[in-house]
Amino acid sequence: MDPKEDKKSASNSPVCVHNPHLDALTDDILYHFSLGTGTHNLPAMFGDVKFVCVGGSPWRMKSFTEYIAAELALKDPRSEYPNICAGTDRYAMYKVGPVLSVSHGMGIPSIAIMLHELIKLLHHAHCTDVTIIRIGTSGGIGLEPGTVVVTKQSVDATFQPKFEQMILGQTVVRNTDLDLSLAEELLQCSKEMNQFETVIGNTMCTLDFYEGQARLDGAFCSYTEKDKRDYLMKAREAQVCNIEMESSVFAAMCKLSGLRAAVVCVTLLDRLKGDQLRSSPDVLHNYQKRPQMLVVDYIKKQLKAKAERR
Amino acid sequence: MDPKEDKKSASNSPVCVHNPHLDALTDDILYHFSLGTGTHNLPAMFGDVKFVCVGGSPWRMKSFTEYIAAELALKDPRSEYPNICAGTDRYAMYKVGPVLSVSHGMGIPSIAIMLHELIKLLHHAHCTDVTIIRIGTSGGIGLEPGTVVVTKQSVDATFQPKFEQMILGQTVVRNTDLDLSLAEELLQCSKEMNQFETVIGNTMCTLDFYEGQARLDGAFCSYTEKDKRDYLMKAREAQVCNIEMESSVFAAMCKLSGLRAAVVCVTLLDRLKGDQLRSSPDVLHNYQKRPQMLVVDYIKKQLKAKAERR
Repeated sequence: MDPKEDKKSASNSPVCVHNPHLDALTDDILYHFSLGTGTHNLPAMFGDVKFVCVGGSPWRMKSFTEYIAAELALKDPRSEYPNICAGTDRYAMYKVGPVLSVSHGMGIPSIAIMLHELIKLLHHAHCTDVTIIRIGTSGGIGLEPGTVVVTKQSVDATFQPKFEQMILGQTVVRNTDLDLSLAEELLQCSKEMNQFETVIGNTMCTLDFYEGQARLDGAFCSYTEKDKRDYLMKAREAQVCNIEMESSVFAAMCKLSGLRAAVVCVTLLDRLKGDQLRSSPDVLHNYQKRPQMLVVDYIKKQLKAKAERR
Repeated sequence: MDPKEDKKSASNSPVCVHNPHLDALTDDILYHFSLGTGTHNLPAMFGDVKFVCVGGSPWRMKSFTEYIAAELALKDPRSEYPNICAGTDRYAMYKVGPVLSVSHGMGIPSIAIMLHELIKLLHHAHCTDVTIIRIGTSGGIGLEPGTVVVTKQSVDATFQPKFEQMILGQTVVRNTDLDLSLAEELLQCSKEMNQFETVIGNTMCTLDFYEGQARLDGAFCSYTEKDKRDYLMKAREAQVCNIEMESSVFAAMCKLSGLRAAVVCVTLLDRLKGDQLRSSPDVLHNYQKRPQMLVVDYIKKQLKAKAERR
């Protein structure tokens, strides 16, 4: 059997858009990336992408890129990786071999804009078999700070596994399931690394960091410490391990477009014990590195297995 | 009468927090600004702030700072204005005399985090009589591109003037009224400048840029061009002049904290005629400058009037 044929028959799952109007566009401007089909050769630039890693902070995605470049030994680790979205300050994007890294800012609307344009980019570039992982930070519930949570289901502020999308003034409910086999593979990877605690659990996704997450330290707070604790304990009963602000729309949009998706967030503090981040910058930096370490290890193993299959 | 006394009696309206728990904090870490009461002398750094201008893009807020510095002739226009939040990449902050400029990213959650920490900052710094203006970009409905809209009321995707805040899993409805006298003053300023069209109207604030604003060019679109048009025409009947993604929570939070607030956004395109931004970068740059020009003119006039009252 020809090895190329074997490789071709493996899966070839495309990245799906669901929009008949796109065919009518002579060129498609990906405005918030400062890219477009009329100005850039997207298949040449991105056709080989197999892994997309996204995170809130542009600095963190740049350092992730330098880290994975060194680990994959794909290029000189001292070389510079230009920001592909240098024409805008909305998002930052870097590429090393088959790994694309993109920042998404904070909150559901910000990551949703990025994902619309990313899904169109991957579609226009004819990418196949793409795995996408959000690497982020979160507040933990009853976990030792520094624990990494791989999300099983993303739930809303009432602990329901759904994302509500407004379309033409009507609410459309979308599924927030993530790829459970991918989550299990990431957990297995962490066990083999044996460098920090990793758990699989539900992640609560909120529209607000302060009142929306029952914090006592925002500009406004109308509830007591007991109210806060009762709410977080109810979340814990619903298997919520951590709280962040992007996973629900990330899960919903990746599922719709056929992307294999996971959310890997480190917990920076235990919300049952406090609200403010009082750990030293060094400790916080170490924690933030953990999802990166796990995902890089996972990608390395996947690429090695793929090379061996050839 | 002593001029100082006259000045003192003018108003002295404080910036209000509504959170009894803050008193129990020995120091307050404004995490997403990389500032804090334990590490920074906030009254010395910010006590003289009278105007706060906020906008999505950090680049735009930097150029706004350089522009207002030159216009107010407060400092050498060639001097560098350091980013006060240089320790983080979440937001950028600049200060020139009594004018503070802060970026807020895209969407309600992103601006809400910034506003919680900004309101606490202004409160800790004992600022009084602060006016806050969001200068941004938007999609227009039936307006010539480049028209500036000063928001009368911020409405949601069903055209209701309200903001829904989730607290402990319950929905709390907040008022989105802005300061109508400030809006009228800004409109009057624009008339005197006579350089571009400015109108007062309602602004629709959405959680999503693509499906949430009835765009036909996202990764997903399940409606027809007629459905889109019907929805936008209904918005127009509700006096909606433009659509953006931050005004509702901005209006709600500023009202709660006693900040005099306005939203001034330029329309980059007429959504009844298309969805993609096809104007040249020069034209778009010119449009984006308009809210800045209007707000700088307004601040100049206010500072001049204040100096004359002394």
